[in-house]
Amino acid sequence: MVFSSKLIEKAVEAFTSLPGIGRKTALRLVLHLLKQDKSTTEQFTAAIDAMREGIKECQTCHNFSDHDQCQICSDARRDRSVVCVVEGVRDLMAVEDTSQYRGLYHVLGGIISPIEGIGPSDLNIDSLVQRAEKGEIKEAIMAISPTIEGETTIFYLTKKLQPLGIQISMIARGVAFGGDLEYADEVTLGRSIVARIPYETK
Amino acid sequence: MVFSSKLIEKAVEAFTSLPGIGRKTALRLVLHLLKQDKSTTEQFTAAIDAMREGIKECQTCHNFSDHDQCQICSDARRDRSVVCVVEGVRDLMAVEDTSQYRGLYHVLGGIISPIEGIGPSDLNIDSLVQRAEKGEIKEAIMAISPTIEGETTIFYLTKKLQPLGIQISMIARGVAFGGDLEYADEVTLGRSIVARIPYETK
Repeated sequence: MVFSSKLIEKAVEAFTSLPGIGRKTALRLVLHLLKQDKSTTEQFTAAIDAMREGIKECQTCHNFSDHDQCQICSDARRDRSVVCVVEGVRDLMAVEDTSQYRGLYHVLGGIISPIEGIGPSDLNIDSLVQRAEKGEIKEAIMAISPTIEGETTIFYLTKKLQPLGIQISMIARGVAFGGDLEYADEVTLGRSIVARIPYETK
Repeated sequence: MVFSSKLIEKAVEAFTSLPGIGRKTALRLVLHLLKQDKSTTEQFTAAIDAMREGIKECQTCHNFSDHDQCQICSDARRDRSVVCVVEGVRDLMAVEDTSQYRGLYHVLGGIISPIEGIGPSDLNIDSLVQRAEKGEIKEAIMAISPTIEGETTIFYLTKKLQPLGIQISMIARGVAFGGDLEYADEVTLGRSIVARIPYETK
């Protein structure tokens, strides 16, 4: 792609540094901004700068936050006896979007992966154990992907938390609601048969 | 989507204001920026701010430019006797990317559209006529979409430029190279038969 302007070229490069944005899309975004008033671009970059400058990590659960404590941790209506342990903030948001969970969270910031050189000390595990030691938590829900690394992380956390009298639970796995059986992968379908539950008529 | 941070929410909104970016994609971009160093975000927004602040319109062809004259207009090696007339900068870039054209350009900034209330005076037509009046231009290539509005614009420009002794030409239309005949639309295929050219063996 030939650019007749270095300024446009640099802005296109800036957009392509983002995940999933190629040069054609980046160019479309840049030309879109150039079509609008200058103030549109100013608002756009100001919102991003303000976020990057102002964002904090919640000192309790490591969620992104505007303050030292995130909105969830400082919400008095939430059940403080349950903690949902997630790999990252996006997983936290996914659970939160279901509106089915009213407990707290703990963001690990990754999972144990010996291949990538990520050990327990690289994750927010000590702070989870410290939370558990305070005695407020009764149950920890492992909402972690069922990969080898995920299972390793769950195993490690269980060894740390169970001695503190905390009930460990896992999110249910199975065929998705509305999902066709024939399209479910073998492992999921197999496990959903092994972990079958009694049918109850109400 | 529930956001535990107003700062993140505003940054996500900023990204969703761009074309083709929904909330899920915007969130992914925002979380990507939060994972990187602060300097990455600074460079990102600085490149966009610098572009929006510094970009100019070429005083000859209305292309986006870093200076009063764009790189193409100020390039002495280009053929100054031919002008390719395009609707927008993206069309200019598309032609430029073919590396088949060594003349100059003229960006109209739109096409005549009575329905949308866009008349000749809203477009960069006067400046094209002024360029033509200087006598340097011999040929004007209409690289404009063959819609009703496009044909109207071409007709209007021809009426203005032909009296000045300028040869008007149109880009060739037809079935795309490598394109299957059966998938070509009827109008394109029909016109490509009417506008057939003699086969030449070299």
